[in-house]
Amino acid sequence: MVGYQFMGKAHSHAYRDLPFFFDTGIKPVQKAISGRNESAVKKAAERFGWESYETDWRRLIEREDIDVIDIVTPNHTHAEIAIAAAEAGKNIITEKPLALTLDEAQQMYEAVQKNKVTHMICHNYRFSPAVQFTKKLIDQGRLGKIYHFRANYLQDFIMDPQFPLVWRLKKDVSGSGVLGDIGAHSIDLARFLVGEFKEVVSMMETFIKERPVGEMTEGLSAVSDNSTLGEVTVDDATAFLARFENGALGTFEATRFAGGNRNKNKFEINGEKGSVRWDMENMNNLEVYFHDDEPGLQGFRLINCTEEFHPYAGAYWPAGHIIGYEHTFIHLVHEFLNGIANNYQPSPNFEDGLKNQKVLVAVEKSAESKQWVNV
Amino acid sequence: MVGYQFMGKAHSHAYRDLPFFFDTGIKPVQKAISGRNESAVKKAAERFGWESYETDWRRLIEREDIDVIDIVTPNHTHAEIAIAAAEAGKNIITEKPLALTLDEAQQMYEAVQKNKVTHMICHNYRFSPAVQFTKKLIDQGRLGKIYHFRANYLQDFIMDPQFPLVWRLKKDVSGSGVLGDIGAHSIDLARFLVGEFKEVVSMMETFIKERPVGEMTEGLSAVSDNSTLGEVTVDDATAFLARFENGALGTFEATRFAGGNRNKNKFEINGEKGSVRWDMENMNNLEVYFHDDEPGLQGFRLINCTEEFHPYAGAYWPAGHIIGYEHTFIHLVHEFLNGIANNYQPSPNFEDGLKNQKVLVAVEKSAESKQWVNV
Amino acid sequence: MVGYQFMGKAHSHAYRDLPFFFDTGIKPVQKAISGRNESAVKKAAERFGWESYETDWRRLIEREDIDVIDIVTPNHTHAEIAIAAAEAGKNIITEKPLALTLDEAQQMYEAVQKNKVTHMICHNYRFSPAVQFTKKLIDQGRLGKIYHFRANYLQDFIMDPQFPLVWRLKKDVSGSGVLGDIGAHSIDLARFLVGEFKEVVSMMETFIKERPVGEMTEGLSAVSDNSTLGEVTVDDATAFLARFENGALGTFEATRFAGGNRNKNKFEINGEKGSVRWDMENMNNLEVYFHDDEPGLQGFRLINCTEEFHPYAGAYWPAGHIIGYEHTFIHLVHEFLNGIANNYQPSPNFEDGLKNQKVLVAVEKSAESKQWVNV
Amino acid sequence: MVGYQFMGKAHSHAYRDLPFFFDTGIKPVQKAISGRNESAVKKAAERFGWESYETDWRRLIEREDIDVIDIVTPNHTHAEIAIAAAEAGKNIITEKPLALTLDEAQQMYEAVQKNKVTHMICHNYRFSPAVQFTKKLIDQGRLGKIYHFRANYLQDFIMDPQFPLVWRLKKDVSGSGVLGDIGAHSIDLARFLVGEFKEVVSMMETFIKERPVGEMTEGLSAVSDNSTLGEVTVDDATAFLARFENGALGTFEATRFAGGNRNKNKFEINGEKGSVRWDMENMNNLEVYFHDDEPGLQGFRLINCTEEFHPYAGAYWPAGHIIGYEHTFIHLVHEFLNGIANNYQPSPNFEDGLKNQKVLVAVEKSAESKQWVNV
Repeated sequence: MVGYQFMGKAHSHAYRDLPFFFDTGIKPVQKAISGRNESAVKKAAERFGWESYETDWRRLIEREDIDVIDIVTPNHTHAEIAIAAAEAGKNIITEKPLALTLDEAQQMYEAVQKNKVTHMICHNYRFSPAVQFTKKLIDQGRLGKIYHFRANYLQDFIMDPQFPLVWRLKKDVSGSGVLGDIGAHSIDLARFLVGEFKEVVSMMETFIKERPVGEMTEGLSAVSDNSTLGEVTVDDATAFLARFENGALGTFEATRFAGGNRNKNKFEINGEKGSVRWDMENMNNLEVYFHDDEPGLQGFRLINCTEEFHPYAGAYWPAGHIIGYEHTFIHLVHEFLNGIANNYQPSPNFEDGLKNQKVLVAVEKSAESKQWVNV
Repeated sequence: MVGYQFMGKAHSHAYRDLPFFFDTGIKPVQKAISGRNESAVKKAAERFGWESYETDWRRLIEREDIDVIDIVTPNHTHAEIAIAAAEAGKNIITEKPLALTLDEAQQMYEAVQKNKVTHMICHNYRFSPAVQFTKKLIDQGRLGKIYHFRANYLQDFIMDPQFPLVWRLKKDVSGSGVLGDIGAHSIDLARFLVGEFKEVVSMMETFIKERPVGEMTEGLSAVSDNSTLGEVTVDDATAFLARFENGALGTFEATRFAGGNRNKNKFEINGEKGSVRWDMENMNNLEVYFHDDEPGLQGFRLINCTEEFHPYAGAYWPAGHIIGYEHTFIHLVHEFLNGIANNYQPSPNFEDGLKNQKVLVAVEKSAESKQWVNV
Repeated sequence: MVGYQFMGKAHSHAYRDLPFFFDTGIKPVQKAISGRNESAVKKAAERFGWESYETDWRRLIEREDIDVIDIVTPNHTHAEIAIAAAEAGKNIITEKPLALTLDEAQQMYEAVQKNKVTHMICHNYRFSPAVQFTKKLIDQGRLGKIYHFRANYLQDFIMDPQFPLVWRLKKDVSGSGVLGDIGAHSIDLARFLVGEFKEVVSMMETFIKERPVGEMTEGLSAVSDNSTLGEVTVDDATAFLARFENGALGTFEATRFAGGNRNKNKFEINGEKGSVRWDMENMNNLEVYFHDDEPGLQGFRLINCTEEFHPYAGAYWPAGHIIGYEHTFIHLVHEFLNGIANNYQPSPNFEDGLKNQKVLVAVEKSAESKQWVNV
Repeated sequence: MVGYQFMGKAHSHAYRDLPFFFDTGIKPVQKAISGRNESAVKKAAERFGWESYETDWRRLIEREDIDVIDIVTPNHTHAEIAIAAAEAGKNIITEKPLALTLDEAQQMYEAVQKNKVTHMICHNYRFSPAVQFTKKLIDQGRLGKIYHFRANYLQDFIMDPQFPLVWRLKKDVSGSGVLGDIGAHSIDLARFLVGEFKEVVSMMETFIKERPVGEMTEGLSAVSDNSTLGEVTVDDATAFLARFENGALGTFEATRFAGGNRNKNKFEINGEKGSVRWDMENMNNLEVYFHDDEPGLQGFRLINCTEEFHPYAGAYWPAGHIIGYEHTFIHLVHEFLNGIANNYQPSPNFEDGLKNQKVLVAVEKSAESKQWVNV
């Protein structure tokens, strides 16, 4: 694993916890983690259960005892690491967004294709049982033709103007702001559930233009009192309208300025025959509405997706005993290992990452040009 | 009152029920109602408590015993009636949208200005106690600078392709579809709570292009099996992004194709210091979040706006005993009569209607030009 | 109408508003209201739309232009007035509980039986469309055999120890405290939906034993700073377990000390085939669960009971446009007039009031004896 | 660990996952698991990560490399195993209820006292961050004097009459039915949050008296078609009223016949200054109401207890990223190891188990005697 912060923790846990609940035929061994700061990476290795550590990611790729490279570093480093890993024949999981630019993303995709490695991009929210169940309902035609996809991903952790200018707020490191960080997740959910994007029109805004220079500590809650101010070069909020290739309409909003919404990743889908609503903060629940329910008895059903009938849920606890955020990563890694074990290319993968990036780029272009942009 | 269908019923009830709960100094007398179909208007007069009826609205305007003209007819007739009423010195309430075109709206506004009559436009949702309370919180600075206004007005009553081609689906009668019918309400709430619009970009869609010719019966639930099809000339769904003059961002969506959402008129506002959420289907409730609540105890408060501290609520029942949709009209009429009694021009009025129309027009233009349009 | 406070207002409004929405063949005329305080009753007559007033209820009963006596006075006066009204051949609506004692209740019931008048007791919550719809589902066997009825009626308006010693807190005037005031409503809902009680065991408690002498003002929110304290002679909270004749189990709790619950009148029913949940604070909603829904898609449906398929709802507004507390009274009066017009004895009536009183008495006895008591 | 079914899985996972999130100074090593069925226990050992297995629990106790005995067997075996373990100086975690009888429970408590081992009973729900946070609020006096504790623990997994006669439905193995299985959890929450019980009165019912002989499979969802029927000797539903020593009133209901409630373990507490509501199915959320919130702005706050301010939550993910059922076990084991490491006796322990058992016994006695019973 390359990197060891928030996502490093989430991925590490998934490798560790997966075999307890699922049997994929492959049992992951946490060989090594890398990071430039030796004392920090050493501590992370111990804490997160890695057998060894390296201070240069290139060493990981050289090591023959390593089959999988998991990239959880800041976005501007994804491309170089992933391409090197692919060339070395390693299977790869990378955090989203795939890359900073479309070019990079394209090269990454070509590298994994050429080297025939297994690859995934970490759009973990797909792997909530409720979302997987939604996909199943859609594939079975239970919602009919889709009319609307309505997504909000709302956070509030940087509303304080004293929140420091962390790497996620710098364009050269992160590529974009809230759009690439969490908007990308909504885009992935839309592609997964509705289909490909045709065109978009957007607006992007930075509410707080300057912030104290500094880094955040664990927990995302850090507030600096550093008096040196630096420029915020990414979006605090992005909203866009979309038309999908199948005729559905999409509305998207991603913001870090929606007070009281800690991690409100939600969507509603309206189809010809039914609707669903989902909200990550109560991720075990799915609201489902069917038009053909008996008149007078029509209403959204609140389904606790913790039953054996719901994807992945059967591996855990009896109905009504909920799971949480970290389990989405377990399911993603499960799918990854399944792909390796059974020789198929799992999703979402670098192709999905590339298509996602195309939407991200179109959204950014639209914000500049103030026009609709084809994806 | 001119007209006697759904809105005719709602307005009639407001006049009748107002004096029971509120004392405005003026007690409305339901003098006469007009409609072209004599038997229908006669029946409506009896049912809704009007002393007399006319089959020509011009007669209402001629009558000297009538001080107020209330226009609840299809949209293409608003201008002619309102201008005539203004010229005759009558005070006027009209249904929204103000008119079919900006020109008409402008003329209507000039007519009421010139004739110094009291005028209102029936954006009744403003008058929910929870919305009025939200306005108060904003005016007191309790939410701070507004960052986001996020509105959805979702319905589903025409999803069945057999639902007939009623007047609301014909552009020459209604002006626009879901945008002018319910999107206009969201625009009014935004103007009331956030401020004036600067620019918009939109998309509009008609999912069902042809429908059986016919009219709906009371209750909006009619389905025709008429085999003659006619063209739907208005939008089934409209979504738009907006920037407000004060820098806030707005996202809007109005649709009649959101299954399971009978009348889901909702919004969320995120400000520097707090947020609110409201939903007409549970209109007595307001969710309020304050950033300065104690750490660990921050969360949306579910406030049942039925207490004496909430606008209008004190006139009804003890706390926790809810009111409904019809009461929003009572409050609007109360404000109207108050304006007459105390010699001020209440809101929302024709000026609001005109400004609203400018937004509607900009949204329509943007859908055509595929570009941002200044309001 | 005898009396003119909170319930006087609610009943008066029902008579006034009923004909607008419903056609029962009989149009109520608000002839006269009585009260001992002339200036207060005069004001109430004007405000609530009564043609005349009396300062002695006996005069109402003597008047030949009056066909219906509606009793909204404190509980200790119900019996005398109702019996006199019955003897005079008047039709009667009375507030709950029927009387202070079982004896009185029995005499009242005999009086209306003997004089063949139409009679009702004002358990208005039955008349919420969602509750009526629940009754229909149960009668159709949609829930199967009932296992559980779970009712809470929670309020908080007297939690402040400075809240005055109003008549509702004195046993000689009100008969009992929270039990007779709101617990009686839960009992009525149980009898309506589940069936007759077999036996009960209870506990009753008075948390604040002494309060400032005084009366409350309109809105139930008054707090006195009167320094003379008087003894609270009724229960602040009552809870009881019940077995129904059909084998179902019931749990009941009524309290005025449940902070944050303004008027939380709710129940859940669990049957062999399904369950329902209802809460008066969101009275338009009904949650319904069916066991035979498809596996994986089972969950409580949130039904907004505002459609033509829901009892009474068709008389109002399109689906999704909610009604409120006051409409339950309109429906009750509608049922009353229907009974008179069509010559049947509506429910809930004095017989229901008597049976309800038997449960109340059994609950009180059980609290004293600390044993189960047969109803 | 002795036993390997549902609870065996939950406890095993806790040992495995604990060190990833928490550093207690002691790192648990999963030495051995025992069970009578060799092939099943072998499989469980592999799956759940135990280094070895035994087919006789006595062997576990003899082994010197084992410091902790975790008992997750059916209830009738708890006493013998726990006492043997205590005599051997092992630290002990046992599933609830402590034992079948008060005598057994007393002996178990004496054994751990005498042998000075660390002991806990697995009332895991205490360890939800929201519940721990509630405890903190109460201890800080934020709710004031407690008036009401209102608990429901509702399930529905045995409603089908074809659900087999598993060990949980046999009194000789399980001691009691729904009361000891899940009612005991509500009792523990009450003791933890409110205080000791003074007296109770109850009713218990078995709705389905006979069931097909058989055992359930993993997931609790098994239905047998075995035609041999056996007698259900425990309660399907139990409800009871309680008075606490501090004057609070309690209402409790535990049932397996509440359709649609998969694992609805919820409570509401009403105190002089505030109220809280919690529901295990959305265990990360806590609703909190404060009386001293500003008038007009009073309402239950929906708090997502995933912030660093909430007990245990800081060890996981950023705010808004939820955890699940299994984490309650991690926290319990964390507390257990902390107790060992820091030489204090954690709670809930055998003393809590004994006190809980006294309440269970009183509830059962009351159901028989139909009278209030002192605890």
